[in-house]
Parts: sequence; C-alpha cells; structure tokens
Amino acid sequence: MNRHDPEGAIAEAAKSFSNWGRWGADDRLGTLNFLTEDQRRAGAALVRRGVSFSLSQSFDMNGPQKGWRRRTNPVHTMLDTGTDAALGVQGFPHGIGGADDVIAMPLQCSTQWDGLGHIFDHGLAWNGRAAEKVVTSDGDLVTGIEHMAPYVAGRGVLLDVGRVIGENGELPDGFAITEEHLTATAQAHGVTPGRGDIVVVRTGQLTRVRRDGWGDYAGGPAPGLSFTTAGWLHGSEIAAIATDTWGFEVRPNEFEHAFQPLHQVAIPHIGLLIGEMWDPDALAEDCAADGEYAFWLTAAPLPITGAVGSPVNPIAVK
Amino acid sequence: MNRHDPEGAIAEAAKSFSNWGRWGADDRLGTLNFLTEDQRRAGAALVRRGVSFSLSQSFDMNGPQKGWRRRTNPVHTMLDTGTDAALGVQGFPHGIGGADDVIAMPLQCSTQWDGLGHIFDHGLAWNGRAAEKVVTSDGDLVTGIEHMAPYVAGRGVLLDVGRVIGENGELPDGFAITEEHLTATAQAHGVTPGRGDIVVVRTGQLTRVRRDGWGDYAGGPAPGLSFTTAGWLHGSEIAAIATDTWGFEVRPNEFEHAFQPLHQVAIPHIGLLIGEMWDPDALAEDCAADGEYAFWLTAAPLPITGAVGSPVNPIAVK
Amino acid sequence: MNRHDPEGAIAEAAKSFSNWGRWGADDRLGTLNFLTEDQRRAGAALVRRGVSFSLSQSFDMNGPQKGWRRRTNPVHTMLDTGTDAALGVQGFPHGIGGADDVIAMPLQCSTQWDGLGHIFDHGLAWNGRAAEKVVTSDGDLVTGIEHMAPYVAGRGVLLDVGRVIGENGELPDGFAITEEHLTATAQAHGVTPGRGDIVVVRTGQLTRVRRDGWGDYAGGPAPGLSFTTAGWLHGSEIAAIATDTWGFEVRPNEFEHAFQPLHQVAIPHIGLLIGEMWDPDALAEDCAADGEYAFWLTAAPLPITGAVGSPVNPIAVK
Amino acid sequence: MNRHDPEGAIAEAAKSFSNWGRWGADDRLGTLNFLTEDQRRAGAALVRRGVSFSLSQSFDMNGPQKGWRRRTNPVHTMLDTGTDAALGVQGFPHGIGGADDVIAMPLQCSTQWDGLGHIFDHGLAWNGRAAEKVVTSDGDLVTGIEHMAPYVAGRGVLLDVGRVIGENGELPDGFAITEEHLTATAQAHGVTPGRGDIVVVRTGQLTRVRRDGWGDYAGGPAPGLSFTTAGWLHGSEIAAIATDTWGFEVRPNEFEHAFQPLHQVAIPHIGLLIGEMWDPDALAEDCAADGEYAFWLTAAPLPITGAVGSPVNPIAVK
Repeated sequence: MNRHDPEGAIAEAAKSFSNWGRWGADDRLGTLNFLTEDQRRAGAALVRRGVSFSLSQSFDMNGPQKGWRRRTNPVHTMLDTGTDAALGVQGFPHGIGGADDVIAMPLQCSTQWDGLGHIFDHGLAWNGRAAEKVVTSDGDLVTGIEHMAPYVAGRGVLLDVGRVIGENGELPDGFAITEEHLTATAQAHGVTPGRGDIVVVRTGQLTRVRRDGWGDYAGGPAPGLSFTTAGWLHGSEIAAIATDTWGFEVRPNEFEHAFQPLHQVAIPHIGLLIGEMWDPDALAEDCAADGEYAFWLTAAPLPITGAVGSPVNPIAVK
Repeated sequence: MNRHDPEGAIAEAAKSFSNWGRWGADDRLGTLNFLTEDQRRAGAALVRRGVSFSLSQSFDMNGPQKGWRRRTNPVHTMLDTGTDAALGVQGFPHGIGGADDVIAMPLQCSTQWDGLGHIFDHGLAWNGRAAEKVVTSDGDLVTGIEHMAPYVAGRGVLLDVGRVIGENGELPDGFAITEEHLTATAQAHGVTPGRGDIVVVRTGQLTRVRRDGWGDYAGGPAPGLSFTTAGWLHGSEIAAIATDTWGFEVRPNEFEHAFQPLHQVAIPHIGLLIGEMWDPDALAEDCAADGEYAFWLTAAPLPITGAVGSPVNPIAVK
Repeated sequence: MNRHDPEGAIAEAAKSFSNWGRWGADDRLGTLNFLTEDQRRAGAALVRRGVSFSLSQSFDMNGPQKGWRRRTNPVHTMLDTGTDAALGVQGFPHGIGGADDVIAMPLQCSTQWDGLGHIFDHGLAWNGRAAEKVVTSDGDLVTGIEHMAPYVAGRGVLLDVGRVIGENGELPDGFAITEEHLTATAQAHGVTPGRGDIVVVRTGQLTRVRRDGWGDYAGGPAPGLSFTTAGWLHGSEIAAIATDTWGFEVRPNEFEHAFQPLHQVAIPHIGLLIGEMWDPDALAEDCAADGEYAFWLTAAPLPITGAVGSPVNPIAVK
Repeated sequence: MNRHDPEGAIAEAAKSFSNWGRWGADDRLGTLNFLTEDQRRAGAALVRRGVSFSLSQSFDMNGPQKGWRRRTNPVHTMLDTGTDAALGVQGFPHGIGGADDVIAMPLQCSTQWDGLGHIFDHGLAWNGRAAEKVVTSDGDLVTGIEHMAPYVAGRGVLLDVGRVIGENGELPDGFAITEEHLTATAQAHGVTPGRGDIVVVRTGQLTRVRRDGWGDYAGGPAPGLSFTTAGWLHGSEIAAIATDTWGFEVRPNEFEHAFQPLHQVAIPHIGLLIGEMWDPDALAEDCAADGEYAFWLTAAPLPITGAVGSPVNPIAVK
C-alpha cells in the first residue's frame, strides 16, 4: 500500500472487490442481498434468554457534532407541553391535555446507517450509476434508504476488538484494525462472521469519550478499520457492518491527504451497508459475561423517502 | 355510556382501569413492563420462515399532515448531493464524493409511538405525576421515550378487524371497534392476544386512503377503538397496541364535544404504549395467506432525549 | 410573441435586455447598482408625515404554501415559554423567566426577495456565470443575498394597477400587466418610476385571497407582469420590483408549456431584484387617500450567507 | 446596590421605573410608543449623503452559538441548486433552472430584537400580564413581535462607548457601562439621545471577537450596560436600544448568583425593545470620520406570528 497514492490504491481495491451487477442492474440493496430468509431464521434461533439491548446513542443537543459540513446535533422542540396542559391553556375539552414535539437533525448526527447513495467514487454511485442521476437536491432517487426498510433484521455478530486486542478494553485513536485483528477477535469469541451477518465492531472509543468527554469524536482521530480490510469486507459476504466510532475507518486515514478512502470502496463498489456511531457497550458487557457473541439483531432504518442515511435504534436480543 | 358526559365516563374508566403504582413510584415504562424476557423468548420462537415486513409508512412531504397544531409532513433536505459530486465542487481528495441530509419533522407526523408523556388527564401524567413536572419546553424530563429504547421487541399479534368484520377488508369511517369485535377477530385468526403482546389492529382505512387519496386521514373520521375497550386494554395486559389510523380510537369520538377520550384513559392511567399510522397491509396479506397471525415484532423508538413520541419502523418477522 | 416558442422568445429577450458585464465581471448586485446615494437622498426627502407601513405578510403556519417543491409554511416553535416560567420550572435565579423560539422555513415561503442566484437560463446565472459554480448544496457562493444587505433602501414607487385598471381594485387571475398598464397607472398616480427606484406593483390578488381564502395563491392562476414587460424592466433602469402575488409574472404563463419565462430573463440577464408575496394594501389605501405614490422604502434582506432569497419586512415611510 | 440581593434590587428598580399602564391596558408596543411620526420625520431629515450601512451580523453556521438552552447557529440548506440545474435534472421547460432554500434557526441566534414576551419578572410579563397567558407553546399570544412590524424606523443614535471610554476602541470584558459613561460618550459625540430614539451602543467586543475568534461571545464575559442604567433607560424615554454583544448587559452580571437582572427590569417593567448581537462597526467608522452620530435607522423585525424575538438587518442611512 503506497501511502502517497490513495487514488491508485482505491482504484485497485475497487476493481478487485466490486459487486457491480452481482444482483442485477436495478439493484437497490447491495450486500443486504446476502441477508436471506435462511439467515434470518438462523438469527432468530439465537434468542435464548429473551434479553434485549439498544445499540443506539442518544439523540439530543449533548451530542458530539460540531458543525462539520453543517452536521449539527439534534434540536428537539415542543409543540405542546405539560406546563401548558397544567395551566389549562390548550383549549381541549373534558380535562384532556397533550404534548407534541418536533425534531430537526442531520440523518448522520448520531447512531445511523449510511445508505448506498452516501458515497461516490469519481462521480459513480453503487452499481456503477452516475451520481447525478442518483442523488440530486430532491434526495436519492434510486437507492433511497426506504428501499431497505423491511430487511435489516438477521444474525448479528459482535467483534469486540477493543476488548480482545486493546488495553483495558479500548483501542487507541489512530489504531488501524486489520483483517488479522478481526480474525483473532472472532476466534477469541468463538464466532465466525460470514455471509449475511450484520457485524458490530467495538473499538472502545465510545467508552473512552463517554468517560472523558466528546472531544473530537466527530471527525477527529479514532481507531477504525484499516483500508486493507476492503478484501475481507468483500470476501466475507457480510450484509452490513457498524462501529462505535464517527467514521468507521481509522482516522487519521492511512494515506496522506486522504479522506475516508475505505468508504470510497465499500459503499459504491462493494455496496456495503455501513453503520456509524453505534453504542455496543451494554451488549458487549453481556457478551463478555456469557461468552455468546452472536445474537438476533434488528436495525431498521426509518423509511425517509430519498434519504442517504437514517438514524436507527438497533436492537440486539439474546 | 352517557354520550353527553365524557368527563364522567373518563373519570369512571380511569378509576376502574388504573395501573398507577403497579410498577412502583419511579416507573417509566407502563405496560411495557408486561413484556418480559419470557415473552421475548416465546416471540422469537415464532420465526419460522425468516420473512420480514416493515409496518412503517413513508416519511416525506407526500404525507397526510395538514398542519393541525403545527403537525407538518417531514421536510428532507440535502447538505451534499451527487450533482455536486459529479461536478467536482465538493473539495474532497482522490475522487471521493458524498451526500448528506437533514430532516425536520414532528415526531407524530407518520408511523409513530406515543410516549407516556403524550397525554394528560386533568393535569396528571402517567403514574399520577403532575404534568408540569413531567413535560416542559425542555421535553419529557421523566418518561421520555428514550427510556423505552431497548425493550420494544416481543410477540406481535395482528388483529385484522377490517378483514374479519368489514366489507372488502375495510371498516367504514366512524366504525367503533368493540371488545366483541376484537375477540371475534382473534377467534377467526386462531390467536389469543394477551399479557405482554404488541397488538396491531388493522382497520383497512390506510388501504382505503392509499387508493383514494389522504383526504382527512389526519384527524378526520376514521374507524378505531371504541371508548368501551378501555377495560379490555387494561385487563388483557397487553404491552402495546397500534393501528393503521391517525388517532387509534374511533372518530368522530363517541361522546359529544369530545377529543380522544380513550387516550385520556389509556396513556395516563393504563400506561399503555400506543402506536399510530402504522402500515400493516403487507403483513396482513401474508397472515391471510398462511393463517399465522402471531409473529416476532421489533418496533424500537429512536432514543430522542425527552421526546413524547418517536417515529418508528416496526419490523415483523415470521 | 409566438405562444408556442417560449425558448425562442426568452432567447431573444435575453439578448436584447442583457446587463451582463455592465457593472464589471465581479458584480454581485445587478440592478441594485442603479440605487445610488443620490437616489437614497432623494428618497429620504419624501418623508413628510413620518407615517410608516409594513409591506410584509405574516410568517406562520396559516400561510398559502402547499408543499410545491417542498415549500412549506413557517414552523415556529418555542424553546422556553411563559407557562414554564409561571410554573417555576426554568431554573433561573431571582424570579427571572424567559421565552425563546425557533423557526424553520423556506426562504421563499412568505414576503421575500429573490436573490440573483434564484434563477438560471440554460445553466447560466447572473452576469453569465456557470450555475454550478454559483449555487451548490453549500448555497450561493458568489451572489448570496448577504451581499445586498446594506443597500436596499431608496425611493419606493407604488403602482396600484389593481386600483387603476382593475374592477373594485383587483385584477382578475390570469390578467397580464403590460407596459401600457404600468404607464397608465403611473400617469394616473402622477409618478414616474425610473432609474434606481424600487417599484411595488399591487394587483389586488392578495386583497382577494385575504377575503376569499388562500386557494391556489401559491402557484395557481394570478394576475402579474406580462412577459412583454421585459423591455420596460430593463429600459426603466429600476433597481427592484415587487408584487403582491406568489410569482411576480402572470399565471398561467403566456406561453404553452412554460414556467416563469419572465424570471428567466429578469434575474439571470437583467440582474433584477424581484420581490414576491408583498402586502401593499395598507400603503395603497394611504396612497389613494393622499395621492402620493412615492415614498421612502427600506426592504433589507437578512444576510443569510449563501442564500438565494430572503424573507423581508419592507418598511415604507411617507 | 447590594451585590448579594439581586431580587431586592430588581424589585426596587421595577417599582421605580415601571411603565405599566402608561399606554393603556391593551398595549403591545411598550417604549416603541415613544417613536412618533414626529420622531420619524426628524429622523429622515438626517439623511444627508445617502450612504447606507447594515448593522447585521451574518446568519450562518460560523456563528458564536454553542447550544446554550438549545440556541444553535442557523442551518441553511438548499431545496434546489445550480448544480442540479446545470445537469438538467430539475424537470423544468425551456432551459429555466432554479435554486431555493430553507433555514432553521433560533430567533435569538444572531442580530436580533428581543420582543416584549422574551423576559418575565416573577411570572409577570410586560404591562403586568400573567406570563402564562402571554407566552405558551403556541408562542406569544399577546405581544408577539408581529405587532411591532411597521414601526421600528426612526432616529438612530450611535453611542460608541468603546471608542470614547475604551482603549483602542474596545471595552474589556466585564466592563459595566454606567449612565456617566453613556452621557460622556454622547457629549463627546455631540448628540443627545432622548425620547423616541433607537440607541446603538458599541462596546467593541464584536471587533475583538472578529479578530480573535468567537470564544465565549455567546454567554461569556462581556462589556455591557450596568444594572444601574435602569433609571436612564426609563427616564431617557428612548424607544429601543441595542448593543454589539450577546447579552446587552455586563457579564458576569453585577450581582452574585444572578442572571441578566437588567433584562428583568427593562423588558417586563420598562417595556423596552432591546437589540443584541448587532454589528455597528462599519457605521461607527463612518461616524468617527464625519462626526455625525445621529442617522435614520430602520430595523424591521420579521412579522413572525407569536414570536418573542426576530432576526433583523438594521439599516442606517446618513
């Protein structure tokens, strides 16, 4: 890997690991095609105790966003309140009172899925489509996240790389997770992530910023996947992957003058569904306790028409 | 039931069907307490084929909202687009391009859960708390929807009242669904909704407006639950219930000069989690075909801090 | 004028009435350049009685917008309220309480200025610039409305065409105002609109919809300027012009299969500042009463960085 | 002034300087009543050169807000862009293209007027009204900023206290401007601010943060009016006053454990229109150059129905 030539490395990986055409010219789902009904049946069978976990961070003003490319934290305001109701100013009959609310937020502000229209390579989107035919100011006209709405439920696998490879359960910022790290972690856990799985990678960075403050969580240095994992992401035939970090891949990126090079391969070429800013900590504690790192996972994006991403509350059940 | 005295009827039902204190003074979950790990285990066992269904309507400008109490349809805008990327104006290196987006929407605009802070009775919220201590302009400080984030996954039961009782699969607007209708439907389906279940009631109104146009779907006449079902909602010990209508209960309401009287009992007194504007149609077709009306259901609200409701994409798996 | 060839007519008008290069290659102000300090001095001299008028419509949910191209009415919500303050839940010391608020709105939702980046002709913006270099998802990088912030104050002239030409003070929907109508109106008023003036054209449509309901005010049939006034708009050397209608020009447009053809000449080629949805009615009553149709006018856009338009509260003083 | 008893000092000032009832029980304008047609006529006579200045800061993501009480910087997004137009994806006929935009912002995020419903004293709003009858979640039902829409145009007076009293044109953070400072500045300028005037106080803090970065401009230490100026604010009978700071009054406030005590007197008791975050710097340079500190000023709030404040682009003309 030539650190001075991200464009060359990306082009090579894109060529080697492309899924373009694999599911037909009209495909809108990418690797989510790997998540079949068989996989879903096998995933549901993993529910043994009936205990459930949310893998979502909060959605509020106390989030990590600092305004990069106009990404803000969510602004939640009320249309009606209990104070209004208590004071009888709402104009409703027979003593009923109500509260309603509104939210304004970037779809990438907190726990999220990146849709297939989120990243382009030299003007090309997933499956080789022209970016300008896919995502205009009207949104994603082809691969909007709404097309994935029914499907993101299957077998989840936690790879707690922070716990297995890191110290005190945390990888340091700038740590590049390689295929070797992923494999060693899976072996330590006794799981084999594979075709159709939704893989959740815990780096421990969220644990750290929860303790120390957000700092530059949104865009600053972070542990994350190495660019060199592109082959594994492709070859493992996983359906989706998520991390507890802002940007999925290691930051600073491994090339000079680069910006999220693994995204440029993974989304438009592999067609991979990527999750960011997940919170696997409660689940990870439980997995460490019972030694079971596979579970039933539902992570349903909101069907926002034409969206290139979606906030999500992933639910793991063991 | 005296049609001229909603306040009296509500007071009586509130007294008869109250769950205040049932789960302690600090409770934030209401009937969601009925959804135990046992229930969840039983629910997951219902996954036989691995087929999944979204029960969510779309989130976009083409929704039914007309501005009642400032409820609008969602406004989705782009921060970055494929057209910008294609024209090379984004300033990113090595050919990467991106699209990002933003949404502004009422939390009650489309498929949703009503949180426990959504409705008050004479200034009292769930568990007998003073409304003004619970929901201020800062949101729901006590029973915000975020507290439910990990738990809304369990056994789902579809009661397709439209198909069993209605003509051509649809109940007419203004049709009040009684306990008898619910029981007859369950018998016809061969299911018994009970403790800890998440019940989905299909009236067929959504099917109708999908065919005929929204009209007054948001707040106008609609089929829905009769006020007289309050006892069943309480006694059945279900965890949650949702309909394919705007307002859950029959409209016009069954009392003169009334507004959503069943809400006034169900939310603050029973502590019941209510879903509105769900889309059960694809699931209902499948249930009619295979005769199985119970399934695994995950309907995870976004953990928006202090919210009195949440958009949701409920996922049923059979 | 060939009704079947809007493109040809637009091209011809664009060629005849172009101001490209007139104020240099770097110009960001268009016809606002005509509004000189001399004009401003003369305008201020028109203040005789000291009476002031707002020419702005309201900004609220009761507006005319119906969602065309995601244009909604403004949504105003509170961050803090008097009910919260009265109940003492705000946490402030020594008895102080506060109310704060938020707005979400299209910049074109109510009384507005169209900026120079609002309309393009075959991919070209004002002064011949490539549209894609001017307005990206980041906004108008060149001619953003903020550049006009200090300058929109000068001599205002009301042309009450509705009163002079219409019946009962109103022009019917679909009425095309020609140069002859403008001239006749000016003569009836005893004013001569010219170089550097801000012209306000009253059609009376707003009076009508205020009486009869919004109906299709936002985009439907309306009186307005004829395409044939392009020459007058150019030759008169006015600085700006505004109407009491949604779309400035007559609707339906005068060509078959056309959309706002006069905009396509006036904004990118003439560089004309256009106002829409103004409310001249109170001012018009006063002008009719005292016979003075020229006045001091300040109509300052908010300096929203990169905006292609701005809400505005124009203030006329006589 | 007892630094340990803000509540007592506020009560005393409130009693001494109250304007309650002065303009009748129904008043919605407060001190704006002082701005008569005579004043407006005199103000317009100050236009000698015809030069105009904007006193507005920018409205964009690069502002000073850090999220205090959910106050964010403005988020401006596009509904249509020049890149879309250039690529021909908009679906319009005859080569027309367009750009539209949306803004979401707190009304107190940048250059603003505080409306009369913005601050309460022990649950009482301007003119002695109960706060909960004035400002609910529906907004200000009585004194909404829309009522002021036509009137805020008159004689402006700049008091460049930074230049006269400060070093290098700037007062240090924490500097309390007293009546003596105001009077000395006015004398140095040769102006006498009085009845019906709109006074603009320049502290120089904005000049400093423009040079050094926002830092804690939004809510941190700042120069500003001393609590002891309450008498002058009342007795001078000015119509309105604005500063170049976030909070108008000196910060930290002059009492222990206090929050904006002068607001608590000035808004609900004096009924004073207060402007914050104005940018007087360009005007101040001109005033210093020509020695004329009085001018014509138009600062028209947007008539947002029920708003307790409004963004504004104040225009001074000399």
